[in-house]
Amino acid sequence: MVDILHRAGIKSSVDEVYAALTTPEGLAGWYTTNTQGEGNELGGVLQFRFGAGGFDMKVLELNPGKRVLWEVVEGPEEWIGTHVDWKLDQVDGYTIVLFKHEGWKEPVEFMHHCSTKWAVFMMSLKSLIETGKGAPDPDDTKIDNWN
Amino acid sequence: MVDILHRAGIKSSVDEVYAALTTPEGLAGWYTTNTQGEGNELGGVLQFRFGAGGFDMKVLELNPGKRVLWEVVEGPEEWIGTHVDWKLDQVDGYTIVLFKHEGWKEPVEFMHHCSTKWAVFMMSLKSLIETGKGAPDPDDTKIDNWN
Repeated sequence: MVDILHRAGIKSSVDEVYAALTTPEGLAGWYTTNTQGEGNELGGVLQFRFGAGGFDMKVLELNPGKRVLWEVVEGPEEWIGTHVDWKLDQVDGYTIVLFKHEGWKEPVEFMHHCSTKWAVFMMSLKSLIETGKGAPDPDDTKIDNWN
Repeated sequence: MVDILHRAGIKSSVDEVYAALTTPEGLAGWYTTNTQGEGNELGGVLQFRFGAGGFDMKVLELNPGKRVLWEVVEGPEEWIGTHVDWKLDQVDGYTIVLFKHEGWKEPVEFMHHCSTKWAVFMMSLKSLIETGKGAPDPDDTKIDNWN
């Protein structure tokens, strides 16, 4: 098993970041404008659709201001059953976001792509909260020929 | 052992990307303006200095247009002995850069930070080659309280 790891620091309260990870408006502001579903309900399913495909994530854990955990239940084969884990902490005026996309079976080329893409979306999340403007799909930063 | 993985696609020839990874001007254009040393010599040592610290990388492999491999010989404790591996390939008009920073002993919080930061520098490399302007330190994208 191999994991994608990231860390961002956002000048904001943990509550603001938590809202951006659990509400449709928040998620649509940094990840994809085509977001449906319930992010603030245990067992709820979030449907994210992108130009290049989509994922459904089931909400496994909600700890306000501290942690959000999703399980991928639909999407590319390599993603099914993997977990997307967001841990929040307040440090030096920043909300520190520790991110993990864990449970990949193999470090395939697609995993390299997804790692870079998650980083770009972390920066979109940071920008949304700090400036009011994120870069969700379809206006996300394109990183390669896979989008 | 755990690895940081990334993938970028750059609209350019492999030779242009290879030059940006092996010449002082290239490296100073996307990674840090404070770059010294020999990137185009087997066994040469590159000295990268940043506002937040620095690394020395020894050049272990040079395969023009295909691969560059560095070993970290000075820097933060977690980095010493790790390898930074750049593989290049031409696909659909893009140079695909497969990046690996491998040999981390543990998935510590600093590794999360470095993973996001490498992605940001990959986008700086892409931008340098595609637009003529990268974002090397000290004008790099700050991602968190560690810079």
